[in-house]
Amino acid sequence: MEPLDYLAEERSKASFDVEEMKIVWAGSRQAYELSDRISRLVASDPVFRKDNRTMLSRKELFKDTLRKTAHAVKRTVELNLSEEESSTLWNYVDQPAYANLHWGMFIPAIEGQGTEEQKQKWLPMAYKMQIIGCYAQTELGHGSNVQGLETTATFDPQTDEFVIHSPTLTSSKWWPGGLGKVSTHAVVYARLITNGQDYGVQGFIVQLRSLDDHSPLPGITVGDIGMKFGSGAYNSMDNGVLRFDHVRIPRDQMLMRVSQVTREGKYVRSDFPRQLLYGTMVSVRQIIVSESSIALSRAVCIATRYSAVRRQFGSQNGGPETQVINYKTQQSRLFPLLASAYAFRFAGEWLQWLYTDVTKRLQANDFSTLPEVHACTAGLKSITTSATADAIEECRKLCGGHGYLSCSGLPELFAVYIPNCTYEGDNTVMLLQVARILMKTVSQLVSGKKPGGTTTYLGRVEHLMQCHCEVQRAEDWLKPSVILEAFEARAARMSVTCAKTLSGFSNLEEGFAEISSDLVEAAVAHCQLIIVSKFIEKLQQEIPGKGVKTQLENLCNVYALSLLHKHLGDFVSTGCITPEQSALANEQLRLLYSQVRPNAVALVDAFNHTDHYLGSVLGRYDGNVYQKLYEEAWKSPLNDTDVPDGYHEYIRPFLKQHFRTARL
Amino acid sequence: MEPLDYLAEERSKASFDVEEMKIVWAGSRQAYELSDRISRLVASDPVFRKDNRTMLSRKELFKDTLRKTAHAVKRTVELNLSEEESSTLWNYVDQPAYANLHWGMFIPAIEGQGTEEQKQKWLPMAYKMQIIGCYAQTELGHGSNVQGLETTATFDPQTDEFVIHSPTLTSSKWWPGGLGKVSTHAVVYARLITNGQDYGVQGFIVQLRSLDDHSPLPGITVGDIGMKFGSGAYNSMDNGVLRFDHVRIPRDQMLMRVSQVTREGKYVRSDFPRQLLYGTMVSVRQIIVSESSIALSRAVCIATRYSAVRRQFGSQNGGPETQVINYKTQQSRLFPLLASAYAFRFAGEWLQWLYTDVTKRLQANDFSTLPEVHACTAGLKSITTSATADAIEECRKLCGGHGYLSCSGLPELFAVYIPNCTYEGDNTVMLLQVARILMKTVSQLVSGKKPGGTTTYLGRVEHLMQCHCEVQRAEDWLKPSVILEAFEARAARMSVTCAKTLSGFSNLEEGFAEISSDLVEAAVAHCQLIIVSKFIEKLQQEIPGKGVKTQLENLCNVYALSLLHKHLGDFVSTGCITPEQSALANEQLRLLYSQVRPNAVALVDAFNHTDHYLGSVLGRYDGNVYQKLYEEAWKSPLNDTDVPDGYHEYIRPFLKQHFRTARL
Repeated sequence: MEPLDYLAEERSKASFDVEEMKIVWAGSRQAYELSDRISRLVASDPVFRKDNRTMLSRKELFKDTLRKTAHAVKRTVELNLSEEESSTLWNYVDQPAYANLHWGMFIPAIEGQGTEEQKQKWLPMAYKMQIIGCYAQTELGHGSNVQGLETTATFDPQTDEFVIHSPTLTSSKWWPGGLGKVSTHAVVYARLITNGQDYGVQGFIVQLRSLDDHSPLPGITVGDIGMKFGSGAYNSMDNGVLRFDHVRIPRDQMLMRVSQVTREGKYVRSDFPRQLLYGTMVSVRQIIVSESSIALSRAVCIATRYSAVRRQFGSQNGGPETQVINYKTQQSRLFPLLASAYAFRFAGEWLQWLYTDVTKRLQANDFSTLPEVHACTAGLKSITTSATADAIEECRKLCGGHGYLSCSGLPELFAVYIPNCTYEGDNTVMLLQVARILMKTVSQLVSGKKPGGTTTYLGRVEHLMQCHCEVQRAEDWLKPSVILEAFEARAARMSVTCAKTLSGFSNLEEGFAEISSDLVEAAVAHCQLIIVSKFIEKLQQEIPGKGVKTQLENLCNVYALSLLHKHLGDFVSTGCITPEQSALANEQLRLLYSQVRPNAVALVDAFNHTDHYLGSVLGRYDGNVYQKLYEEAWKSPLNDTDVPDGYHEYIRPFLKQHFRTARL
Repeated sequence: MEPLDYLAEERSKASFDVEEMKIVWAGSRQAYELSDRISRLVASDPVFRKDNRTMLSRKELFKDTLRKTAHAVKRTVELNLSEEESSTLWNYVDQPAYANLHWGMFIPAIEGQGTEEQKQKWLPMAYKMQIIGCYAQTELGHGSNVQGLETTATFDPQTDEFVIHSPTLTSSKWWPGGLGKVSTHAVVYARLITNGQDYGVQGFIVQLRSLDDHSPLPGITVGDIGMKFGSGAYNSMDNGVLRFDHVRIPRDQMLMRVSQVTREGKYVRSDFPRQLLYGTMVSVRQIIVSESSIALSRAVCIATRYSAVRRQFGSQNGGPETQVINYKTQQSRLFPLLASAYAFRFAGEWLQWLYTDVTKRLQANDFSTLPEVHACTAGLKSITTSATADAIEECRKLCGGHGYLSCSGLPELFAVYIPNCTYEGDNTVMLLQVARILMKTVSQLVSGKKPGGTTTYLGRVEHLMQCHCEVQRAEDWLKPSVILEAFEARAARMSVTCAKTLSGFSNLEEGFAEISSDLVEAAVAHCQLIIVSKFIEKLQQEIPGKGVKTQLENLCNVYALSLLHKHLGDFVSTGCITPEQSALANEQLRLLYSQVRPNAVALVDAFNHTDHYLGSVLGRYDGNVYQKLYEEAWKSPLNDTDVPDGYHEYIRPFLKQHFRTARL
C-alpha cells in the first residue's frame, strides 16, 4: 500500500531537487548522511519517545531525562559512536539534561583553564563520568556582570586550602544546569582573596556531593530552583541553587592556567594570554547561532506544512476552502521566516569558518582580529536568537488555535528556546558590545585606520554616506549589489549618526548611556548586513542540483527585502532609499512570495526533520493532521475517566441544588 | 515594626498623588473601592491560593479549578454579592474555568437567540446551575469561517425532532471551554437542514451528559482535547471535543428568535433584525480590550518593580551597582509598555461607552453606526491583544534570567493570555475587516458621503494628503494637535494608497487578496490613531489629583512617540514627517523617559494589584525579591529528597563505572 501523503500534490509542485537542497542545508553530503542516520536511529528507539513529555509531572520528567541520558550513553558505547555521532544523537534526543553542561561547560572549563597537571587529574574521571560536573558562575544577584560575583575563595596559608563561602543571600549560585540534583562537582567562580586582597573572579573545582551516596557534603546547601517556563521544555533540567558555608578545598583545585596562588599565598599571573579564553566564548556563541537556524527551521516546517493542510474561507460553489498558505497575509508572515532559517544557517556556517580562522590566529599569537570577531559573534548571537524566539511564536500564531495545543510542538519549542536570548550574554548587552566596536571603528577612520573583517564596508564610508540607490523598477531589487549597498549604506549612516551624537558629549560613557537605544539599533543594522552579505556570498559559490540555486536566490531576496520593509524607517529616514523605491521593493516581494509558494513545502522538507524530532501533529510529514489530533486528544489525563475527579464534591452539588447546604 | 519596603525610596520620588491615579485607572472611585475590596477578599482566602499552580499535574490542576469555582459560588452566596461583585471576585480568582463559558457564552446565547418561551424554560435552570452549559461552535477543521461548519441538524418531521450529527472527522466540535468534562448542556451550532435544503448555521440546545451520574448520553462522544501552552495557565480549563452520532433533540431546542422551523418542517425567518446579534460580538470584544490593559498592567508592574530592585554593572568605587531601570535601553523597552497599559485602559473605557451608545441606537432600530462600530471594536481587539501578548514576553525578557522562572508569574501570564490573539476573531482576519470598512469609506468620499465615528478624519482627506508637520524643535512634539495630525495623515495616506492600488484591479476581491498585507498595515495605522486620539481626548477632561494629569500627559506622549518611532517607515515614506522631525521625536522621547523614570514605580502601584493577583516573586510590592526567590526554590518537587528519584538506576552506575555491565 502506498503510504498516505496529504502533501503529495504540494511536493509535486516543487521546481527544484529536494535531495540536493538537503545537502546544502546540512552543509555537506557527509553531514547530511550522518544526521539522517542518527535522527532515524533516535526516532525508532522507544526510550527516546517524547510525545508524552508535557503530561509528565516534574519528577517524572526529570527521571525520564536521567533515563534518556543513561540510554544515550549506553547506545553510544554499544554502537561505538564517534564523538560527532554521539553529540548528534544527543541533539536528536532533544531534551535538556545535565550532560549538556558536563560535556559542554564543566569539561571545557578544565580543559581551557586548568594546568596540565590539573587536566591529567580531573579529565579522565570526567570523561568516564566517574564525576559529573557543572559550571557554577551565575549568582542569584549577578548574571551579566561576572566581575560583580560575590562568592569568596579565601586562601588559608595555615592549611594550604581555599575557603569557599557564600557571604550574602545574593551570592547564592543560581541557574547552573545540572547543579540541582545531579552534579557531584562544579567549577565554581569566586573572588580569590589572599593576604587580605581581592584578585577578582577565578575558577575552582569543588566537590558538592558524596560519591558514595550522593548526599551533599558538609557546608554545601544545594537544590533545584523550581519550575520554569512551559510544560516539558527546560523542566527536564535541574537548574540549581548552591550555597557554601566555609567549604575547604585544597589549593590545587583552583584552575591555575592563567593565574596561580603559591604555597605562601602569593598571587602570580602567568604569561598565558587571557585572550585565548575568549576563544571559548566565540565557540559557544557560534554554536548558538547554528542552533538558532535549527530551532527556526522546526517552527517554520510545522507552520508551512500545516498552512498547506489547513483550509479556511474561499470555498467556491461548495468546493473545498482555500489552503491557508495561499493567503498573502499568511505568506508575508511565514515566508520571511522560512528565508531567515536559511539565512541563519549560512551565517552559522560562516561563523564556524570564522572560529576556525581565529583559533589558528590565536595559536600563532595573532590577536588582531579577536575584538572584531568577538563583537561579530556576540551580535549574531543576539539577532539570530531574538529573531528565532519571535519567529517560533509567530509560527504558532500562524497555525491558528491548534498551535496552542502542546501536541503542535510549538509551545514546548518556544519555551525551551527562549533562554537563548538571555544566557551566554544577554541580547541587549551583546548589541551594546557590537556598538562599541562600531563606534571605535568609525572614530578611527579619521586617522586613516582601515577597518577589517565585517566592518570593512566602513572603509568606504564617504561613498556610503552619499550614494543613491539606483532602483527604478521592481526587478532592480533582485541585484545583489543593489541590496548590499542599501544595507551597507543604512548601517554606515546609522553608525556615523551615533558617532556624531556621541562627539557632542563631554563624557563619552555618559553619551554612550544616553543614546544606548540608538546604538542598539545601529548594531542591529550592522548585524543584519552581515547576514545578508553572507547569504549573498554563499550564492556566489557553485551550488549543484536542479533549481536549488534559484530557490536560494529567491529566499535571499525575500530575507533582504522583508527586512528592508520591516526596518523601512531606517532606510528611508537615512535617505538610503526613496519612498518610491520602497514601494518597488514591496512589489518585488509580492512577486517573490508567489515564486516561493509552490516550493514552500519542499523547502521545509529539505530540513530533513523526522516526525519524532519535530514532535508536532500539525507538522507531520504526511499531513494527516486531523486524524492524529483527534487520536491525540484521548491521551489527555482527564480522559482516563468519563466523570472527572472532583465531580461529586464540586459539580454534582450544583446540579442537584445542594450547594446551599453541602460543604462545598 | 515598619513593614519592609525595599521600594520605599522609589515611591518617595513620585511627583503625583498615587491614590488619585488609582481612581483614574479604575475608572471611578466606586469601581476602585469595589476592586480593592474584592481583590483583598480573594487574596486572603486560602482556597484561592495559586502559587503552587504550575507544579500541579493536569488532574490536580483541574480538580483545583472545580474546587475554586465551587468556593467562589459559595462565597458569593454567603456574602450576598451583587452580580458585579461576583464577577469581580471571579476575575481575581484568576483561573480559567468552565464557569466563564457557562455565564459568559451559554447563558448569553440563550438570552440573545432564544424565544421568550425558550428563555423561560432554560434560563432559570442555568442561573441556578442546575444545568451547566458551554458554547459549541468551533470545529476541528473550522474556526474563523463559521459558515463553513459541518455539523448537521436535520429536521425529522416524523418525530418532530432534529437529528444532530457529525458527518466527518473535521466536523468534531473542538476547543469549546467547559465542554470536555463539566458541561451537561451545550448550545451547538450546526447546519439546519429541512426538506433537503441547507439553511446555514443555527444554534441548538443539546444535552450532553446525564444529570444523574454525569455520564455522556447515548450518541455523544465527549472528552478533553489535551495539554495546552505552558504549565498551569489554560490547562485549568477542559476545552473539549464532541461528536454526535445521530442525536435526537425536540424541535423546540432550536434557538428560534431569528428563524424558526415549523411543525411541518418549514423554515421561516422572523422579522427580528439580525444586526442585533452583532451587539453581543461588540460587547465581548470590548471586554477583551479592557482585559488587555489589565494583563499588560500586570506584566509591566512586575517588570518595573523588578527593574528597580535589580542592579547590574556600573558600580563605582565598590558601591552598589546601578538599578537596571536607570539604563536607557531598559527604559526605551519598558516605558512604552507602561504607557500602552494606560492607553489601552482608556481605549477600553471609551469602547464601553461606544457599546452603550450603539446598544441604545439598535434598540431604536438605528443600525447606521453598526458597521463602523463593529470594525472599530474588531480592530482594537486585534491591536491591543497582539501588543499585549508581545509585551508580556518583552517584560519577561526585561526581567533577565529570573523572568524565566514560573514564580516570576510571567510565563503563566503569557501562556494564559496569548489565546486572546486567536479566539473571538483571529487578529489578522479582524484587521482585514477594518480594512474593508476603510476602503469602502475612502471609495465613498468621491460621492461626497461624510464619514463618521472613528473614520471622521477621512472627511478631511484632501488636507491630510498634503499637510506638512510643523515640528521644528523637539518640544513641538508635545502638542496634541501635532501628534494627532501626524497619525491622521499617516492613516489617511496609507488607506488612500491602498484604495488607489485596488482601483487598478479589474476584480476587486482579487486585488484585496493581492495587497492584503498592505491593507493590514493600513488598518493598524487606523487603529493606532484611534487609541492615540482617545488618550488625547481623555486628557481634555478634568482630572483631579496632584500631578496626575502631568503624568498621564507624559505617558500619552510616550505612547504616541514610541509608536511613531516603531512605525517610522510609515510616517517618513508617506511624507507625513521628515527624517529631521523623526530625530526630534526621538530626542523628545528620551526626555520623556527621564520624566517617567522617577514616577515609574508609583505609576505601576496605581494599578493597585495585590501580590496574590500579580502572582510574582519579582513583582512583589515590597521588593523583597531575592529572599523570596530563595525560599520559593525549596518548594520544587525535586527538593523533596536530597537524592533524586532515578539516582540508583541512572546516575550511580556512571559514578561507580558499572555502566557497561548494568542494565541502564
